[in-house]
Order: sequence, then C-alpha cells, then structure tokens
Amino acid sequence: MLRLTLRAVLATSLLALAAPALADTLVDNVDGVTIDAEGKVLRFTGLVFDDDGKVVQVLARGEERPRVDYRLDGEGRVMLPGMIDAHVHVMDIGFAALTLDLSDTTSLEDALARIRTFAGENPGRPWILGRGWNQEKWGLGRFPTAAELDAVVADRPVWLERADNHAKWANSLAIQTAGVTAKTPDPAGGKVIRDARGNPSGVFVDKAMALIEEVVPPPRPEDRDLAFAKAQEVLLGYGVTAVADMGTEMADWTTFRRAGDAGRLQIRIMAYADGFETLELVAGSGPSRWLYDDRLRMGGIKLYLDGALGSRGASLKEPYHDDPGAKGLPLLTPAQLRNLMSRAAMDNFQTAVHAIGDAANAEVLAAVEELAETYDGDRRWRIEHAQIVDPADLPLLGKHGVIASMQPLHQTSDRLMAEVRLGPDRLEGAYPWRSVLKVGGRLAFGSDAPVEPADPFAGMAAAISRTDAKGEPFGGWLPQETVSRETALAGFTADAAFAGFAEGRFGRLVPGERADFLLVDRDPLFASPDEIRQTKIMQVWIGGVRVRGE
Amino acid sequence: MLRLTLRAVLATSLLALAAPALADTLVDNVDGVTIDAEGKVLRFTGLVFDDDGKVVQVLARGEERPRVDYRLDGEGRVMLPGMIDAHVHVMDIGFAALTLDLSDTTSLEDALARIRTFAGENPGRPWILGRGWNQEKWGLGRFPTAAELDAVVADRPVWLERADNHAKWANSLAIQTAGVTAKTPDPAGGKVIRDARGNPSGVFVDKAMALIEEVVPPPRPEDRDLAFAKAQEVLLGYGVTAVADMGTEMADWTTFRRAGDAGRLQIRIMAYADGFETLELVAGSGPSRWLYDDRLRMGGIKLYLDGALGSRGASLKEPYHDDPGAKGLPLLTPAQLRNLMSRAAMDNFQTAVHAIGDAANAEVLAAVEELAETYDGDRRWRIEHAQIVDPADLPLLGKHGVIASMQPLHQTSDRLMAEVRLGPDRLEGAYPWRSVLKVGGRLAFGSDAPVEPADPFAGMAAAISRTDAKGEPFGGWLPQETVSRETALAGFTADAAFAGFAEGRFGRLVPGERADFLLVDRDPLFASPDEIRQTKIMQVWIGGVRVRGE
Repeated sequence: MLRLTLRAVLATSLLALAAPALADTLVDNVDGVTIDAEGKVLRFTGLVFDDDGKVVQVLARGEERPRVDYRLDGEGRVMLPGMIDAHVHVMDIGFAALTLDLSDTTSLEDALARIRTFAGENPGRPWILGRGWNQEKWGLGRFPTAAELDAVVADRPVWLERADNHAKWANSLAIQTAGVTAKTPDPAGGKVIRDARGNPSGVFVDKAMALIEEVVPPPRPEDRDLAFAKAQEVLLGYGVTAVADMGTEMADWTTFRRAGDAGRLQIRIMAYADGFETLELVAGSGPSRWLYDDRLRMGGIKLYLDGALGSRGASLKEPYHDDPGAKGLPLLTPAQLRNLMSRAAMDNFQTAVHAIGDAANAEVLAAVEELAETYDGDRRWRIEHAQIVDPADLPLLGKHGVIASMQPLHQTSDRLMAEVRLGPDRLEGAYPWRSVLKVGGRLAFGSDAPVEPADPFAGMAAAISRTDAKGEPFGGWLPQETVSRETALAGFTADAAFAGFAEGRFGRLVPGERADFLLVDRDPLFASPDEIRQTKIMQVWIGGVRVRGE
Repeated sequence: MLRLTLRAVLATSLLALAAPALADTLVDNVDGVTIDAEGKVLRFTGLVFDDDGKVVQVLARGEERPRVDYRLDGEGRVMLPGMIDAHVHVMDIGFAALTLDLSDTTSLEDALARIRTFAGENPGRPWILGRGWNQEKWGLGRFPTAAELDAVVADRPVWLERADNHAKWANSLAIQTAGVTAKTPDPAGGKVIRDARGNPSGVFVDKAMALIEEVVPPPRPEDRDLAFAKAQEVLLGYGVTAVADMGTEMADWTTFRRAGDAGRLQIRIMAYADGFETLELVAGSGPSRWLYDDRLRMGGIKLYLDGALGSRGASLKEPYHDDPGAKGLPLLTPAQLRNLMSRAAMDNFQTAVHAIGDAANAEVLAAVEELAETYDGDRRWRIEHAQIVDPADLPLLGKHGVIASMQPLHQTSDRLMAEVRLGPDRLEGAYPWRSVLKVGGRLAFGSDAPVEPADPFAGMAAAISRTDAKGEPFGGWLPQETVSRETALAGFTADAAFAGFAEGRFGRLVPGERADFLLVDRDPLFASPDEIRQTKIMQVWIGGVRVRGE
C-alpha cells in the first residue's frame, strides 16, 4: 500500500517537475540589472530559478519572496546577465593562452629563462611553441641563435615567432627535424640566417619560416581538448558565458562536442562554420538543434569579403590615404558573395560576412538588398566588424535590420592606424556605432578575441567613451559615435543573443531564459569608463550552476 | 504543508528512481531465449525492464511475478535478444536501398534492361548509381564493358558497384568525365581493366575505383539523412537492433549524430573510423563515450590489409589457382600495418583489420603477436572476414583471443568462386568458423551489408548448415566448419556485442543490459535452417521501447 501511495504521489510530482514550483533557488539581496523582454533596463533585487536552471521570477525591491528550496544571499552585489561576446575565435583563444608569450621579455637572458621554465612546466608537449620576442627590445644588436636555445631546451624542438611575425627562431632539434642544412637554399622571399660556414644559425626570415613550419606537428586531439578548456577558463574569467564562434572548423566543432558529451561544456557557443563543407557535414540541411541545454548550435556560416585595415586588405571605395595605389583586396566577386549567401539562406542558415572597408560593407548591403526579395522573413543578416561604412550606405542596414557585429576595442586599438590609412577627411563612417542605431540597424558587441582580450567590461568602457585604457584621447575619438551605457550592456548581452537567434534562451534575466548571471562589484550603468574596466567578477553562474567564484 | 509533504516524498522517490522498482514493465508469457552472463543459453518466460529501458529481472517458468506498473502478454511468442550485426556499412545500406540494385540479376542482358528502366524512372538524377552486379553469377566469364552500358544509358554517367565492392563498372561518359584514358596509369593497389589498345574498358578494380569516384557528386546532407533513415528501416526489418559500422566516415558520423540529437537514432552503432583523421577528429585521444543511452560510440578504426577473393585482391600465400601469376594485392606493408595498429592501440583504440586471404590473415596475426607484448590488457584485436586462414596460423587467434568477425552468408555466396580461386586442395582453412573456436579464438557474426542482406536469421541458418537458401550443397560445404545453434545465436548477439566492448550494455537479456528484444514466431535453437530463414519478426523493442510491430 505504501508503495502504491508513493507512486501516486510521484506521478503527480513528476508532472509538477515541468512547472517551476519544485527545487527552486532564490538569489536574494542583489542589485540586479538586465535588459528586459522589451529591450528596456530592468532593475531587480531577487532572482528565482528552477531545477532546469531557468529563470522563474525576477523580483523587485519589496516584492514578496516566494517559498523556495534554496535561498542565497547576494550580499548586495550587482547582478548582471552573463556577458555574451558576439565575435570570438574560441579555439584560438585557448591555443594563444597555451603558447609561451615572450612579448614582455626585456633581455635574451630573461627570454631564455622563461623558455626553460615553460618547457619544464610542459613536459608533455612535443614542440615548444611561442611568440612575441624582439631582439631590438632586448638591446641585443643581433638575432639570437639556435645554440642559445639549445642551452635551455635540447630534448624537444623549439619554434618561436618574432613579435612582428616576420621571423621565427628555432633550436637545433627543430632545424634538424626539418632537415635544413648549409646546403638548403634560401627560398624566394625568405632568408635563412647563417653562420660563417653557411649553417643555419637559428632565425628564419619571412618565406624561409615555411622550411620549419611544415614539420611542426598539427595539434593532437588532447591539445585541442586542453586548448578548449583553457579558452573556457579565459572567457569565464572575463564573465563571458556565451559566445559566437566565428569560423568554426570541423576539428573545433568535434572538440566542442567531446566537451559537451563529457559534461565539460560550460559556455554557450553559437557556431558559424568556416565554410560550406563543415556547415553541411555538421548541421546538414538546416541549422543544428540547440544541444546540451542551449550550449551549442551551428546556425550559420562565416564568409570573408575582405581583409583588415592594418595590412591594407580592407576593401575601400577610394585608395588608401597612405598608399594611393591600393584599395584593398576583395576576396569574393559580387556574384560569388551572392551565390554563397543565397546557398546558405536557401537552407535557412544565417550568414555572417566579414566586411571591414567601406567598399566591402557597401557590397554586403547591396547583396542583402537583392537577396532580401527572395529570402524574406527573419534572416538577421550579419556583418562582422563593419568598421568603415560609407554614411550613404547606412540606411540599407536599417531597411533590412542588418546586424552590425562590432568590436569596441578594435576602435581604441586601431584609431591611430585608421587615421593614417584613411586620412583625416574620411573618418565619418569609422566604427559608426551610434550611426548604425540611428538608421535602425542592430548592434551586437564582441572582442574578436584572441585579437583583442575577450573582456566585455573593457569593451563596454570603450563603447561608451571611445577612449582607451589610458583614457585617450581625452573626450573620446569621434565621440558622436559613443553609445549609451544601456546600449553597451545590451550589446554584450541581449543584443548579442538576438544576433545568434538565442533570444528566449539566454542573454536576459527574464522568466524562461537560462539563469546565466554574474555577481560583480560595481554597476556598469553608473560607473565611469575607467571604473567599468576595473570591474571585479565575484561569481559566474551558468544555467543556475555556479562555475566561478565562491 | 501539503507541498512540503509532497516534496519529502518526491526526494525519496527520486532516489528510488535509480533503483528498478518504479514504472517497471513485465513482458510475460514468452518463450524466451538468451545467452546469459556465463555465455550459456538461458530460457525464461518473463522479462521485466525499467523506465530507463534496462532489464531488471529475467523470470523462469513458474517463478513468482513481481508487482509492476505495466504488464504485456507475449502470447507465447519466442523472445530473442535484438540481433547484432558485427560488420555492416550503415550508410551504404541506406544508399543501396535508394539506388539501383542489380544483385539478383541473372545475366548481363537482365542487368542492362534494369539499368535502362531505372534511368528512365529517375530522369532527375545526374548520375545513375547502382550496385550488386557479379559477372560470375551471370556466367559471363569476363568483366562487362562500358560500351555495353553506353547502349542503355549514354546521356548521363553510370557507375555501378560490384557485389563485393572491390570493383566498379562505368559507362563511357563516366570515364570521360573523370578524364581516364589509355595514358592513365594504374594506381598502386588498383587496376584499370583495359582493351587491347590499353583504353579503359569499363571496370575499375580496388584503388582504381578512385579514378572515377572523385568526380561523382557527393550526396547532399538531406540525402544522407534519408539514407540513414532507410538503413535503420532495413536493419529493424531484419530484427537487427545494433551494428558495428565498419569504416565510419566523418559524414556518416555527423549523420548519426544529427539523428541522435533529434531523437531519430534507433539502432545502436559501434563505429570504427575509416581512418585516423576521422578517428582523431571525432573521438579525440581515446574511444568516445557511449552516446544517446548506449546508441553510438566510436571505439576503434577499420584498416584494410587486402582486397576480396572475387576480384583476386585477397592476399594469398600461393598464387590463385585460376590465375597462377597473381597472389593478390596487400594494401599495407608489414611495417605500415604494425605502425597503424600501434598508433591506434597507443590511445586504447580497437583495431579491426580487413583480411581475407591467408597471407593477409597470417600478417595480421603476426602483427598481433608482436604488438601484444607492448599493448597488453583487454585489446580485442579484430580481423574482419578472416575468410581464408592457413590452419598453421590459427593457433595465434587463440593465443591472443583475437576476434574473427565473420559473415556466414559470404560463405554460401562465395563457395563456388572460392573453389575456383583456391582450387580443390586449398580449402581447408576456408571460412573456418568452428576451427576458430577450437583454437580458442572468438567469433562475431555479421553480414557485411549491403554486400549481403543484413538478415541475421539467414546468417544463422548458414552458420549451422553451410548451405544456402536452396539447401545447397546437400549436407553443407565443408560441414566440419558449421557451428552449433547456440554459437550462431551468440555470434549474432552476445559475442557481437563483446566484439565491440558492449557487453554489459546490450546483446543479452540479463539484468542491467538494455531491453533490446524481438518477438518472433519460431525458436532458432529448434528450427531447421530453412525454417530459421523463414522467421517472422513480430515485434522489435529497443531500450524497452517498441519500434516495430504491434
């Protein structure tokens, strides 16, 4: 009899599990801020989430608290939605963090000591890879040598990139492994630095780097797993709980899935495939499902229409101010771009087109204008970077609700370079955040990490001030393009989710969305840009589970 | 108060869910047969499984029935474990079911008429693809030609796989599209059949198939999803609930995963990657987890050491009886084989090596003998097919517990061809099922579908009789190699699971394993071979859920 009774109750209770009444958790006494379902700022002091890790209730100050199973005291801290970075390269974040960084070494001895330590701390790595050395900064007056490296690491090949990526430094084992000898000729466009007898002495310049590069082993699966773990650690450290991964390769995707299968996938990844091969293999004939409780989805493809401003690869309408013979390199013809976007749209995949120069941006917008006739409905065409947009082209952004996925920190890093490349008279449409909003376009903010640090608080500070970490330039660079604090917060939360078709799942602390939130020590809606950059992240929660902090 | 009470009960009840007491189902009144945990035949009349779809209890006749939530009457039918096929090509089963099937053609003329009809019925297909032809069965005494195909289809390329998948037949347009001419050399490990002038005459053997293959348009994602659905339908129709997929490509894996993610994965798949690239991308640095409630795992790699007997690709110790100049084509050197097996074993991956000829089998066994010193423990080295094994080499199978993954239907299909290829004096080690057991080796049975029908009951009938569907030859071919009914059943259930490290998960109707079972109309342990072939499958259950029958 007892057993039957238990069963009857259980049947009722199991049904009840679908509703949010059981095993709820209340985080009370917080100074909560979120973008709400109407896109407005909502302030609250308590948050209730259920066993599924979904928000059940957002409680205003003074509002009656429901009976719950667990109750946590937020101690008056500021609660924010987990930050979303709309443009990162997840695996590259991990690989960069795992590579020896020599960029702040002050002497050859300093560098060698670091290399020795790194090798000792990483006994399992078959090659020691690193980057960032600069013999000029060391005051060395010559290139370093293989023999100097051999003295600190002789048991494994070592291969270290110079700060400018135009030379690399190898130890003897790396040179032997590649079979480079005194008899190896310098390749066209490259130079092997040699000793008096003609033997390679350690440094390989430009195209000569390929002589060694081709024998560097590709990452092993365990390297990928480790890099992904590291990437999650880096992102969570910045309070980032979700990202758009721009250019997901098959090996990246399978790494994410291994993590998901093993319960090691913490952050949420909106994946944009690196090409149609990956897209069709993975997702098939339409966007993949949301996997692992909204932690992974492949919903679209990343396309490249041009290069970057720094290397003069960005495609401009008029020649570069500092190189009147150059207008950049479009990577696709107009027809190719339309065909690729059309092929994706046909299967309801989203397109995210890298466009930096004004010619490239004009081209994407023209393509959207054409394609929108055929592919109507909620397409959310994305432009990645959208750094230089001709004001004349901006209205098309609004007309088609195009999402400009922009990186505030690029603006602060690039501004001097941009002035040189474009000249003083063509800066009107440079990093035009507010202008995008004015014409009815949509913003999503990100970092392009590891190109910039994946720090959304630094990003918000830049977004509202157009100044860098030193507060320069005073008053902000083209300050008419700053956005409000609320817009900056939305850009790194709700709007970044919307850009990946994730609204309703995460990005806001509203009922039904995942309880992804941070407890931090200050309110970005009231702090100065400099204070925002100093934000301390006390706790990070994803889906109602604390993943960082105590 | 009521709510608190409910909760207290629920907490208890949720704990209880881990135990098998709640929501159990009893299938009673069956004539049940399974291999038990000791490898013996166990008879039972009732089976209890829980909400997780796992067997809780196996009840003997007269044993008291437990109280359960659901009770089904088996109406006295025979209950068997779901059948497991230890060697199939899942996606090929689906594609084969969707393409032209020539396997029951009786003459070249018959085949040509079918091809003409199929092309007419499928005007939208850019290529006419098909399979299953066998010039031996046609009594043609030579390979068919492109010109013969041209006479029935000239407007589109035609590309037709031989029954053994070791040769393909093209029409002239296919050959032209691929740009193969008299000047094209035979690739290593392959042969282009040529006319007197050296022009390709239509058939491409083993590695030469790639010359045409590379211009065949790949299937679209939706084609793959459809083919996989079809493959499941075919397998379930034969009562097959689990398979080893031999040579899983990345696109196959992602198709399986799409099905798993969408809840459309019904059968259980033990995947063996088609190469290290797929293996490392998918599984990483060790076997993947069991995904989707034990429905998918990548645990090893398929390697090819030789070709097939029919196309004289099998690697023999002595020349072919019907071609004294040929001994077959080994596809790997001894050192390559050892390196590949070692590389897999290093990461605890299982190896399944295709070996058909006696030289190939000797080579795999020699490699195992060497590698077993380094890679000890439970390795379960597999040989796929093991068709011709020199009796002198057999003891090594036993010494290392090597699993001979064999296909009973190959024996019945091949016997006349095998006699021609080997001659009357070299048949002692041909399809040596019982001999494998005698020396302490292990058997796992399969079909090599779509090469043979994935019908385990036809397989069992062949295994116990060495006769074909017509009962020929009378008394069985080399009948000393028949196995017992119990061994045949184990080969298609428990032993096939063991061969994939799946024991304890499925393959037997014992507590803790998945409730994968069939209700059929006769008992294979009592029926004649011919009766076994006529077995009617009334119901198929996987993980306690009925997926076929009423």
